[in-house]
Amino acid sequence: MARVINFSAGPATLPLPVLEYAQKEFLDHEGTGMSLVEHSHRGAAYAEVHAETKSLLRELLDIPETHEVLFMQGGATAQFALVPLNLRAPGESADYVMTGAWSDKALAEAKITGDAREAGTGKVDGKYTRVPKQAELDLDAKAAYVHYTSNNTIMGTQFPYVPDTANAPLVADMSSDILCRPLDVSKFGLIYAGAQKNLGPAGITVLILRKDLAERSPDTLNKIFRYSTILNGDSLQNTIPTFPVYMVRNVLRWVRDQGGAAAMEKRNLEKAGCIYDMIDGATDFFRCPVERDSRSIMNPVFRLPTEELEAKMIAEAADAGMVGIKGHRSVGGIRTSIYNAMEPSDVQKFVDFAKAFAKANG
Amino acid sequence: MARVINFSAGPATLPLPVLEYAQKEFLDHEGTGMSLVEHSHRGAAYAEVHAETKSLLRELLDIPETHEVLFMQGGATAQFALVPLNLRAPGESADYVMTGAWSDKALAEAKITGDAREAGTGKVDGKYTRVPKQAELDLDAKAAYVHYTSNNTIMGTQFPYVPDTANAPLVADMSSDILCRPLDVSKFGLIYAGAQKNLGPAGITVLILRKDLAERSPDTLNKIFRYSTILNGDSLQNTIPTFPVYMVRNVLRWVRDQGGAAAMEKRNLEKAGCIYDMIDGATDFFRCPVERDSRSIMNPVFRLPTEELEAKMIAEAADAGMVGIKGHRSVGGIRTSIYNAMEPSDVQKFVDFAKAFAKANG
Repeated sequence: MARVINFSAGPATLPLPVLEYAQKEFLDHEGTGMSLVEHSHRGAAYAEVHAETKSLLRELLDIPETHEVLFMQGGATAQFALVPLNLRAPGESADYVMTGAWSDKALAEAKITGDAREAGTGKVDGKYTRVPKQAELDLDAKAAYVHYTSNNTIMGTQFPYVPDTANAPLVADMSSDILCRPLDVSKFGLIYAGAQKNLGPAGITVLILRKDLAERSPDTLNKIFRYSTILNGDSLQNTIPTFPVYMVRNVLRWVRDQGGAAAMEKRNLEKAGCIYDMIDGATDFFRCPVERDSRSIMNPVFRLPTEELEAKMIAEAADAGMVGIKGHRSVGGIRTSIYNAMEPSDVQKFVDFAKAFAKANG
Repeated sequence: MARVINFSAGPATLPLPVLEYAQKEFLDHEGTGMSLVEHSHRGAAYAEVHAETKSLLRELLDIPETHEVLFMQGGATAQFALVPLNLRAPGESADYVMTGAWSDKALAEAKITGDAREAGTGKVDGKYTRVPKQAELDLDAKAAYVHYTSNNTIMGTQFPYVPDTANAPLVADMSSDILCRPLDVSKFGLIYAGAQKNLGPAGITVLILRKDLAERSPDTLNKIFRYSTILNGDSLQNTIPTFPVYMVRNVLRWVRDQGGAAAMEKRNLEKAGCIYDMIDGATDFFRCPVERDSRSIMNPVFRLPTEELEAKMIAEAADAGMVGIKGHRSVGGIRTSIYNAMEPSDVQKFVDFAKAFAKANG
């Protein structure tokens, strides 16, 4: 079948050249006579992949020497549990900035093993239609860390700024917008991201950890869950999911070849602008529930006049080869996930389709 | 390059038809116009893969209704931590049968969060050259569970029997020999296995859990680490590594097409017999350090007269297209990992090579 345009929220579309490259050498990784998936995680072939993946992340995000790249398993959800277990000492509390389902889950896991509190919220009239501004944050000066979700895939919100948390280390769940634009990594104590949106397929979690924070990992925590273990073991203390890392490397090579994080930002602003312009240019038919300053450039969401029209649009889009635009089941509506890999020309196709749909059904 | 014969201990060789199948549809999964790795873990395409993988495991291992198949992340090492956290209540102790590095690690993680004790050992003169017999097990009648490693990849040992633990649930790390032969799953409380030996690539852990044991998962444990969460969420409570599961499904289809677990046992006995016959037929040159009844049919290990000869054999084997035969760094020697996917004809090639090597260097 012809390639469809895939607006899924994650796992998500990947660059076609990346898929083609992986397919081509799937049976014979770099002339070694075996597939990458068959190589030992301790052998030379995978060691090169591992080192290059870390090196590309360092280069593309301009990661300072104070920070190290780690790979873990379990996605952001495992980090919801592991961040407090590693970074919060007994008796300490942690701050959570609330922007929807993901921060809700992160806070809930943190509360199971200790103290944690809300330090700001984007909730308005019961809905997370915005992110709080810096001045609205209510920070505990003694917090073990401050946690926030930089982009919310369900509500279609994104922080336009990096929160200033004074002395408390800033921890960010960047699963859905890491590498969507340049970033000042020095502002963060920890960044973590499941790979399956901007970085690759599902199955690996990227962490960027300020190295001194690994000293907080307590002896009472199982070794395999300590950041110190992963840091000291170069993420190879046990068998790493080699294929997901390999795919992340291939995606990062593609990002580099496109021009890096700055080129991604330009591309993403163009794509998101295209969709938001369409919405704002036809407010009699389209409506974006998100406050303008909080709009995501990764997951623009919008509503049509009725749920029936939304269902009709989803069906007609699929017929036209555009899939995955149904909003999350908890909020409904339309969601267009346009991560780094999404081509601007494909977004333009969708916008043309949506405008024609509005004209025919408005 | 021509395909090499890969004796790596894991990640390990996979069936060539499985790799070819995955390669062929890598860009277009079953005519959906996108790669499996791009599909949502909540969409119909992956749902089919998920259900079929579970169903094939049930069929091939004849899993009774009392047990459920779960998928988790983090490999066996994460389970070293999670088994006691889920199955051992405060004040309880757990029993560990010791057979080498993997049970050492499992016991060490268990001791971090509570009481655990050795309940038998295969250690002789400081080395794990055998597995203990049933009569040698020293079981605590009140143990929360009894844990053992069914096959040790480093020492080349394997249990020829399933331990009888009376009322205590039996927990097995079967990472390196699951599905190597038929199994009476009803004897187990929990079986867990990293996929990267007999089941597929690295990145997914298969659990077979007696469902009533999920009730033990305590509220004090983070939700994402509770077996009850995984059981109730059908392993889809968060994003699952879709590609590793897909590859496991493809391997299981291959196992089924070969004749199932019984056919694997026949094939594995033939391969292992071929190697052990070679060793026992030339004891002036080859020496297997493992007691006869404890020999693994997955990872036969042996020594040559000198370490220099071992290094020479490893180098000459590589020149002849046979890789991964170097023993684990902690023990040295030669190790031939011959998991399900290893072709008997390739083992025969190795044996022919090894016999010629013995003749030339003996």
